[in-house]
Amino acid sequence: MILDKINSPSDLKSMTLSELNQLAGEIRSVMMQKMSVCGGHFGPNFGFVEASIALHYTFESPKDKFLFDVSHQCYIHKILTGRKEAFTNPEKYNSINGFTNPDESEHDFFKVGHSATSISLACGMAKARDLRGAKENIVAIIGDGALSGGEAYEGLNYAGELGSNIIVVVNDNSMAIAENHGGLYPHLKNLRDSNGQAPNNIFKALGFDYYYVNEGNDIKSLLEVFVKVKDTNRPTVVHIKTVKGKGYEIAENAAENWHWRPPFYVETGEMRNYRSGAVGYDELTRDFFLQKMKEDPTFAVLVAAVPGSVRFYKEERIEAGRQFCDVGIAEEHAITMAAGMAKNGGKPVFVTDCTFFQRTYDQISHDLCLNNAPVTLLVRNASVWGLRDVTHLGFFDIPMMTNIPNLVYLAPTNQEEYFAMLKWSIKQDRHTVAIRIPKAPLTHADYKVTDDYSDLNKAVVCKEGKKVAVIAVGDFYSIGEKVIELLNKETGLQATLINPRYITGLDTELLDELKKTHSVVVTIEDGSLDGGYGQKIASYYGDSLMKVLNFGLKKEFIDRYDANVILRENRLTPENILKSIKNVI
Amino acid sequence: MILDKINSPSDLKSMTLSELNQLAGEIRSVMMQKMSVCGGHFGPNFGFVEASIALHYTFESPKDKFLFDVSHQCYIHKILTGRKEAFTNPEKYNSINGFTNPDESEHDFFKVGHSATSISLACGMAKARDLRGAKENIVAIIGDGALSGGEAYEGLNYAGELGSNIIVVVNDNSMAIAENHGGLYPHLKNLRDSNGQAPNNIFKALGFDYYYVNEGNDIKSLLEVFVKVKDTNRPTVVHIKTVKGKGYEIAENAAENWHWRPPFYVETGEMRNYRSGAVGYDELTRDFFLQKMKEDPTFAVLVAAVPGSVRFYKEERIEAGRQFCDVGIAEEHAITMAAGMAKNGGKPVFVTDCTFFQRTYDQISHDLCLNNAPVTLLVRNASVWGLRDVTHLGFFDIPMMTNIPNLVYLAPTNQEEYFAMLKWSIKQDRHTVAIRIPKAPLTHADYKVTDDYSDLNKAVVCKEGKKVAVIAVGDFYSIGEKVIELLNKETGLQATLINPRYITGLDTELLDELKKTHSVVVTIEDGSLDGGYGQKIASYYGDSLMKVLNFGLKKEFIDRYDANVILRENRLTPENILKSIKNVI
Repeated sequence: MILDKINSPSDLKSMTLSELNQLAGEIRSVMMQKMSVCGGHFGPNFGFVEASIALHYTFESPKDKFLFDVSHQCYIHKILTGRKEAFTNPEKYNSINGFTNPDESEHDFFKVGHSATSISLACGMAKARDLRGAKENIVAIIGDGALSGGEAYEGLNYAGELGSNIIVVVNDNSMAIAENHGGLYPHLKNLRDSNGQAPNNIFKALGFDYYYVNEGNDIKSLLEVFVKVKDTNRPTVVHIKTVKGKGYEIAENAAENWHWRPPFYVETGEMRNYRSGAVGYDELTRDFFLQKMKEDPTFAVLVAAVPGSVRFYKEERIEAGRQFCDVGIAEEHAITMAAGMAKNGGKPVFVTDCTFFQRTYDQISHDLCLNNAPVTLLVRNASVWGLRDVTHLGFFDIPMMTNIPNLVYLAPTNQEEYFAMLKWSIKQDRHTVAIRIPKAPLTHADYKVTDDYSDLNKAVVCKEGKKVAVIAVGDFYSIGEKVIELLNKETGLQATLINPRYITGLDTELLDELKKTHSVVVTIEDGSLDGGYGQKIASYYGDSLMKVLNFGLKKEFIDRYDANVILRENRLTPENILKSIKNVI
Repeated sequence: MILDKINSPSDLKSMTLSELNQLAGEIRSVMMQKMSVCGGHFGPNFGFVEASIALHYTFESPKDKFLFDVSHQCYIHKILTGRKEAFTNPEKYNSINGFTNPDESEHDFFKVGHSATSISLACGMAKARDLRGAKENIVAIIGDGALSGGEAYEGLNYAGELGSNIIVVVNDNSMAIAENHGGLYPHLKNLRDSNGQAPNNIFKALGFDYYYVNEGNDIKSLLEVFVKVKDTNRPTVVHIKTVKGKGYEIAENAAENWHWRPPFYVETGEMRNYRSGAVGYDELTRDFFLQKMKEDPTFAVLVAAVPGSVRFYKEERIEAGRQFCDVGIAEEHAITMAAGMAKNGGKPVFVTDCTFFQRTYDQISHDLCLNNAPVTLLVRNASVWGLRDVTHLGFFDIPMMTNIPNLVYLAPTNQEEYFAMLKWSIKQDRHTVAIRIPKAPLTHADYKVTDDYSDLNKAVVCKEGKKVAVIAVGDFYSIGEKVIELLNKETGLQATLINPRYITGLDTELLDELKKTHSVVVTIEDGSLDGGYGQKIASYYGDSLMKVLNFGLKKEFIDRYDANVILRENRLTPENILKSIKNVI
C-alpha cells in the first residue's frame, strides 16, 4: 500500500502522479471500511479525496495553513497528517473525532463544527501573518452549501480588503446536505456550466482573482491550478467542481442520504441498524406539520439546510410545496424572515438543533422578542442526551434563551403536552414561543394536559406532598418522578412533584404557597446550571428559610461524552439527588 | 407650507413635481430645526429626503410595505405618515423615537435598530403575502454600509429563491458611519462610476433584476424607476446614489461627523454642548491602543463600523495604519477573524457596544471560547447608564456571555483596575477575555490593584466586616460602598465589601469563609438579574443558612428610559438596599 509510506504530508512530495492516484483509491478504501462500521460524513469526504491530496502536495502544512469550513470534509487531511491509524486500525477508530481538532495535530488550528467561519478565520490568520511580516499561504476550504451563511460573505468581503495572500477553495458539489437554496446557486451552476466563464461572477465582484477547475476529482487538473495560486499576494478563489460521495456509486446516486451515513453494509449501502418505521418526536412532528399545512395555507415550516432533522425528505418537501422553506445554512435569516412572516399574516415555525440556535441570539432578541412576533421556535436535541460532539452540545439553550425578555420558552414533559403547546403556540398571536422538543423516549401524560398556555408561567403540581418539593424540567421530569418515589420508599415522606412547563418565568404564587408547608425545593434541569432555571428559584427564595438544591450540568465543553457518566458526575442520578435531600431535611 | 397639507402619504398623490420638490426643502427645514435642538441621525436622513418622497408617492403604504434597515433614515417616512408634529412642534419632539416603531404608526412594522435585517424581514413579509395569495409590494430600504452585514447577504440570497415581488432599494451614499470596508465597495463604486453598467454585478449574480439611479437626490429620476419596478413579480434591486447630509454643505463636507449629530448651531454646525478635551474611558482606551501599537507590531484593534466609539477618527486611523481594522458592520466576522489572528501570532482586541455583541453569541462560544483563543473583547455601554433606546440596551451581556464555558469576563471598578486587566488580557495566551468598560465617571482605586489576573475568580475583599457582605459588581461598586456606609451609620454594623472582579465564576473559597462570620450576602449588579451573577451566589448558598439578596435589573425591554427612575423601580438605590438588609438581619 502506498498509504503505508504516508506519515506526514512531506511524504507526498516525492510521489508520482500515478502514485497519488493510487493513494486516492487506498484512502477511499480505508474510509469506506471505517465508516461502514462507525458511520460518518461520507459524501463530503469521498468527494474531497483528490483535492485533499493535491492541496497537501502543493502546500507545506502546517507552515501553510488549511482551514476547513464545518470540517465535515477533513478525514483525508487527518489521514495525511499522521492520523491514518484512526482509519486503518479498528482499535484506534475512536482515537480522533470527526472534526478538525488542534488537540490531535499541529496541522489543525481550530475545533470547528458550525458553518461559514473558515474565511473569517483565514482572514485573521492572514492578517496576523502580515503583521508579523511572515509569508505562509492561508487556505480556507468551504463547501458550496456553507456559502449560503452570511458570515462566509462577511469573510469574503473582508478578504477583498486584505490585499495579501488568502486562498479560498470553493468545493462545489452542487448540494448542501440536501439541495441548495437561494439565488447564489443558479449562479454557481452557470459558472460550472460555462467552465467558469459566466458573467456577473460574484467572487470577482468582491475583488477576488478567480480560477475554475471543472475536474475537481482529478489530481492533475487540481495541481495545475494550486501551483499557480500558491504564494499569490491577492485574495484568490479556486472554484472546483466535485462529486459528493465520489467513487461509491450508491452514494453518488443518493447524495442527500449519504451526507452523513450511519454504519452500513458496503455491498448494498443498507444501514446496519435501520429500524424501519421507528416513530419518535421527529416523525410525529413531521406528521403534524403536513396535516397543519393542509388545514392552513398560511402555516409554513422553515429549516436551515437540515430538512431531514424533522424527516422532511424529498417526498415530504414535494407534498409541502411552498409551505416548506429551506433557507440554506442561514439561521439568522430564517428567524428574521419568520418575524416578517408573522407580521404579515403567516404562521411560521422554525426548527433546528439547539446548537444552531446559538447563531441567532440577536435575531431572537431584536427581531422576534422585541417585536413580540408570534413565531414558534422548535429546539431539537436540547438535552444531555442530544448531540455529543463538543461543537454541537445541546445544553446551553436555557441560559442563552430564557434570559431574553418577552420570550415564552416551554419545556414539555411528554407527547401530549408537546403537541398541545405546539398547537397553542401556532394559534396565539401575542408571544414569541420556543419549545424544547423532548429528547427522552416518547412518554404519555398521566394528568390532564391543557390546550391553553396563555396564562404564563403557571406550573402544574403533579403530585401533592409536603416538606420537599421537586421541580423537574422537561426531559428530567422522569428523574423527578424517581426521586420522589425513592424518597417515599426510604423515608415514608410524600414529596411534591412539579412540572414547571415554562422556563422563562417563575410561578411565584406557587413558590410562595410552598413556603407554608415545605422547607426544601429541589430543581432538576436538563441543561447547564449557570444562568439557568434553578438559579432563579434559588434567588427567589434567597431571603427566606427555604433550602434550595439546584441540579443540572456544570458549565463546560465536553467532547463525545457518555451521557450516563456525565449524569453521574453532575450528581444527576435519583440516588444522588436523594442523598442531597436527606442531608438537608 | 406644502407640508401643512400632508397628513398621510395619500396627500402626496395629487401633487406636482414642483410641489414635491418644494416639500423636500420644507422637510429639510423642519428636520434641521429639530435636530439642531435634539440631535439625531442627520446624514442618513438628509440624504434620503427625495427617495422617501418618491417612494411614498409611488407606492401605497401601508398596504405596500416599507422596511427600513437599521431605520436610521426613517425621519422623512415618519413626517409623511402622520407624525410630522414630532418635527414641527417642539413640545412634541419627544413624542416619537428615532427608529421605526409599530406602536407609533401602522406604517411601521418593526422596532429596528440593528443592521442588515431588512431584506430578511422583507422576504418573510413577501413569503406570507404569497401564502395568503395577496399582491402588495414589499420594499426593503438598505444603506450601502449595512450591506457588509452577513444577514443582508443571507436575505439577498433567499430573495433570489422567492420568485415573486420583493424590491430592495440600495441607498448608496458611499459610506457607512465612517468609510466603508471590504471588497464590495470598490464594486459599488464601479457600478456608480459606470452608471450601473460595470461587469460582475453582484445583485445580478444573486438573481436580481437591477436598476441604477445616478441622481438619487432627484425626485423625477427616482419616480421614473420606482414606477417601473412597482408590482414587479421578480426580486429587484434599485441602486440609488445619494449624498449623505445632502442640502447642508457643512454636513456634506464632514459626513463622518454628521452621521449622528448632537445638538448644534445651524449657522456654523458647531455642537451646542461640546466639551473640548473631555477625557473618559474611551479616550484613555484610544491612547492606550495607540501606545501599545507602537510597542508591539502584532497588536491590533478591530471594530465593526463604529471607529468613533473608541475615538479613532481619521487621524488616529492613519496613525494606527494596518493595526486598526474596521471590518464593516460585520461583528460575527470580527470575532471569528480575531480568533484567527490570535492563533497565528496576533494580539487582537475587538471593541464594540454591548448591544452589538448580541450578534456574536456563537462566535464567542464556538470560535473563541471552545478554542481558548486569546482574544480580548471590550464591551462598551454595558450599563443601565448606557444607551437608552430599546433596540440598544446594555444590560443583557452578563446573562448572555457569562454562561459560556471558558470565557473570563471581568468587571473592573475603576480606571487602574480596567487598564491592569486590559494589559493582562493582551499579554496572556490562555483565555478568551472580555472586559466591561466602566460606564460610571472615572474613579481611582483606593486599594492596590494587581497586574495578574491568571488566578481566576478570586474576589477582593475591599473592606472587612461581619454579618453582612456586599458583593458589588463593576460600575455598581459605588452603590455597594454607599450601602455599607449607610448601614454603618444607621446600625453601627461594619459590613464586608467585596469586588468580585470576575463575573464568569465564583470565589467559592471566599464564599465558604463568609459562612463563618456572615449571615447575609447582598449582590448588586449593573445588569439584568435573570441568568446573571447574583443568582449564582444564591444557588451556591441554596443549601445553607445564608440569606442572599440579589439586586439588579428586571428582565424587560424598556425604551428611552430615565436611569434614575429605573434604578428606583428596581430598588437599586442605597436606601432601598439598606431597607432590605435591615429586614433580614
